[in-house]
Order: sequence, then C-alpha cells, then structure tokens
Amino acid sequence: MMIIGEKINGTRKQVGAAIRDRDAALIERLAQEQVEAGADYLDVNAGTGSEREADDLVWLVQTVQQTVQVPLCLDSPNAATLKVAIEAVDQQPMINSISGEPDRLEHVLPLVAEHQCPVIVLALDDKGIPKTVDDRLDIIRRLINTTRESGIADHKLYIDPLIMAISTGDDAGLIACETMRRLHERYPEAHLTGGLSNISYGAPARKYINQAFLVLAIEAGMDSAIMDPSSPGIAPLLHAAEAVLGRDRFCSKYNRAYRAGKFDPL
Amino acid sequence: MMIIGEKINGTRKQVGAAIRDRDAALIERLAQEQVEAGADYLDVNAGTGSEREADDLVWLVQTVQQTVQVPLCLDSPNAATLKVAIEAVDQQPMINSISGEPDRLEHVLPLVAEHQCPVIVLALDDKGIPKTVDDRLDIIRRLINTTRESGIADHKLYIDPLIMAISTGDDAGLIACETMRRLHERYPEAHLTGGLSNISYGAPARKYINQAFLVLAIEAGMDSAIMDPSSPGIAPLLHAAEAVLGRDRFCSKYNRAYRAGKFDPL
Repeated sequence: MMIIGEKINGTRKQVGAAIRDRDAALIERLAQEQVEAGADYLDVNAGTGSEREADDLVWLVQTVQQTVQVPLCLDSPNAATLKVAIEAVDQQPMINSISGEPDRLEHVLPLVAEHQCPVIVLALDDKGIPKTVDDRLDIIRRLINTTRESGIADHKLYIDPLIMAISTGDDAGLIACETMRRLHERYPEAHLTGGLSNISYGAPARKYINQAFLVLAIEAGMDSAIMDPSSPGIAPLLHAAEAVLGRDRFCSKYNRAYRAGKFDPL
Repeated sequence: MMIIGEKINGTRKQVGAAIRDRDAALIERLAQEQVEAGADYLDVNAGTGSEREADDLVWLVQTVQQTVQVPLCLDSPNAATLKVAIEAVDQQPMINSISGEPDRLEHVLPLVAEHQCPVIVLALDDKGIPKTVDDRLDIIRRLINTTRESGIADHKLYIDPLIMAISTGDDAGLIACETMRRLHERYPEAHLTGGLSNISYGAPARKYINQAFLVLAIEAGMDSAIMDPSSPGIAPLLHAAEAVLGRDRFCSKYNRAYRAGKFDPL
C-alpha cells in the first residue's frame, strides 16, 4: 500500500496562508509528520486560481525537499505550473492528475509522457463525475487507450475512481469499491488510488468512516491512497488490513511496523 | 450488527478468580462497561471442568441480571449446566453453543428446541475444526438439517464459521470471510457470528487486527460478533462499516450513536 500524504494543500486555509507568507516552518512540520507516519509520496498543491501558482508550487517543492527525502506528487490542473515544478524536483515526481477533460489531456498528458512519470488518472471528464460504475469505467477505458497510445505503461497509472461522500448518497462507498474491483480485474498492471477522506465529508467523527472505507477499499484492490497517514489509528489499520487479507506473508510487514514504533500507543 | 459481550468468561484468570471468590463487584463492572459500550447480549461462561460449574454459572447469571437489563448468552459445553442456568434467567437466553460433536447434539440441541432459544452453531465436529471452507460448509449443512428437523427455525441460528488466528496461517481471515459469504448465500435467514478477537491471537497490537477483520467480516455478511465492545475504537468503526457499506440509510444509526456520545473522544 502506497501512501500519498495529502496535508500540504494550499486549498486548506492554514496551508494557504503559510504559502502566501512563505512560512516554511508549518510546511516542514507537515512534511515531517507525514513521512514519519509512513507517507511514501507527499502531495504538494499550491492552491489554484492564483497567478503565483507556479512560483508558490516551486517554493513548496524546495521547502519540502530540504526537509524530507520522499518523492513528491505535483498537484495542479495547470500544465504550465506542472512544467515549471517538474524542473524543480530532485526525484521523479508523480503527477496529479490527468482526466477525461480535454484541456488536461492536451496539455498535461504530453508532460507525463515526456517525463515518464507515474500519474493519477481521474474517472471524470468535462461533463463531471459520472454517477454510475459503468460510466466511470467508460471514461477510464478511453483514457487508457490514450495513455497507451502516448507510450505510458499501465503500471505508471494510479487510477482514482473518485470517492464521493456517503453523506451525499448511501451507495457512495459501494460505487467506489465496485469501480475499483472492476478496474483491478480489467487493468491488473495499473494501480488504484483515491482521496480517502472524501468518503467522510460532512460526517461527524470522520476518522472512523475513513478507517472503515480504507479496509473495504484495500479488499477491493486499492493499493495506494491520498490520505493523512498521521490520523490516529489509520496506519496500523492499513497494515492490519493487508495482514488479515492474506497479503502480508507471516504478518511480517505488520510486525515490523509495530516493532519500529509506528503504531500509536495502545 | 448484534454485539455479544465476551468479557464475563471464567477462563480469563481475573474473572475465574472473581467467580471462585464470589466477587460480584468485578462482574458487575464488566457487565456495565460492556452494555454501556453497546453490547446487546452478554456472554456468561463460568469456566469449565469444575464440578461447581452449574452453581457458578447461576451465580454469574444472577449477578449480571441484578446489574444490567440485556439478555444473556449461556456459554457452556455442558447440557446439565445449561439446563440449570436456563431456569435462572429472566429473559430468553441465547445458547452458546451446538456443533457437530455428537454429545452436544444429543444433549444441548433438545434444550434449544424445547426453549426455542437463539443458538450459536459452530462449524466443527468431533474431528475438530476443518481447514477448508467446503468442509466447514459440510458440517453446517448437516447441522442445519438436524436443527430444522428439531423444529428450530434458521433465523434462530447464529452460525460461527470459526475464526482462526492469522498467526497460524496467512489465509485464516480469508477462510473465515469466504465461509461467511457462502453461508450467507445459502442460509439467508440464519445469522453469522464469531469470536472476533480470535483473529489476532498471538499478534502484537491486537486491536488493529480485530478492527480490520471486523470491517471485512461485516462486508462478508457477519451480522453479530462475540467481542469486547469497550475496546477503543471498535464500536464506532462497526457503525462506520455499516454506513460505508450502504446498510445505514442516511447514516442515521452512525449519527445517532455519535450524538449519544458512544464514540471515544476524538
């Protein structure tokens, strides 16, 4: 299970202010706490709509890279911003994201192909997020035709089925899991990811909803998540789910994480 | 999801001592804390092998009934003990348990039939616990033929697929879930239960393994568990799993439990 730490995101009020004020201390703390909690990548998002987005993202990249060693996931809908940020990274980044929106396909996809980066692929297009599993699969089918034609191997793809909040519909979790199950069957080389905490938007005590969904999504084939690994209990639960699903031989990863002190105090 | 509180069990050292010493205070505390945490039934087990088992179990029944209002799950392999305890209960009890072992079938089954109690049905026989899903289903098939012939409706049955520790085999969780999935298809009126914490026996930080398995087992159809509802985080996770699986319309049970203050401090 690959964890993409979500917390350095300029659309969050405090992070947005830190970016504006060039307050490196907050960004460094968010980077460290996520890596200590198990993040394999850190998502960096400078907030959108600002003319300074590219400058801001480069500053984020530099600030995070001075603090931790993990690769970054460059998060912007804007190809020009991504192009500048790619030049600033030390290690090959992941790109967040492409989708069926024509603008992203036209401008972001060539960057991905040029740099052969891993990339998050969203199951939406210019008409938005489809309600049904079939319609999401249709978008992904068309997108994968395009990525393959562009010379991007399936194993570079991190497909995001688009996790919606159960507060907007009782079947939101089931739809996300069923989409992942079918994507996993159809594209066994591709990875599956998603914004974990979307599932609990609008609910109280969100961490429990996130925890339950994480376990179900791992069972459905999700092997990556955009999430906050420092949320209490989530990292050990993730290891536990893999062990219970028989995907951690002799529970060795679980036991190793425990011995490394990565679990909360019990 | 029906919770059968597991903590009043004489095979636990402290509880065994409390039973010997007629220390009601400990038993009352265990009863209260489990009911406050959401137990629908309380399992009472006086420990086995003692000549005083029937007396001990009656004392447990009386002590618990003076403290809380929930029905009891009378837990003994011994029909004579169960017969005496059934006379001591205020509300219709559940019987824990029958299995394919001839002695239990001969002596415990008639008690269940006579009192029309809900009963836990173990997927084992005199040869022990089968390794495979098919062999467990075979035992249950034979047992359900017998319970039906005895006039016990399927909805009285709480079938326990026998949850083994993942420390004894990486596929233990998968086998339990697959057994439940197939039992649920085949006997839709019957309930599914199991000793939740068995899955984590021998593992460190057991609560995370229990949590992950609980979510997966609920997905597989488990609608009851013999467990400790006061274990941190487990009760809200259980509600969250039902919500994420679309089995809690408008998340109303989840929200109600939250508002009732039944979740740990966050």
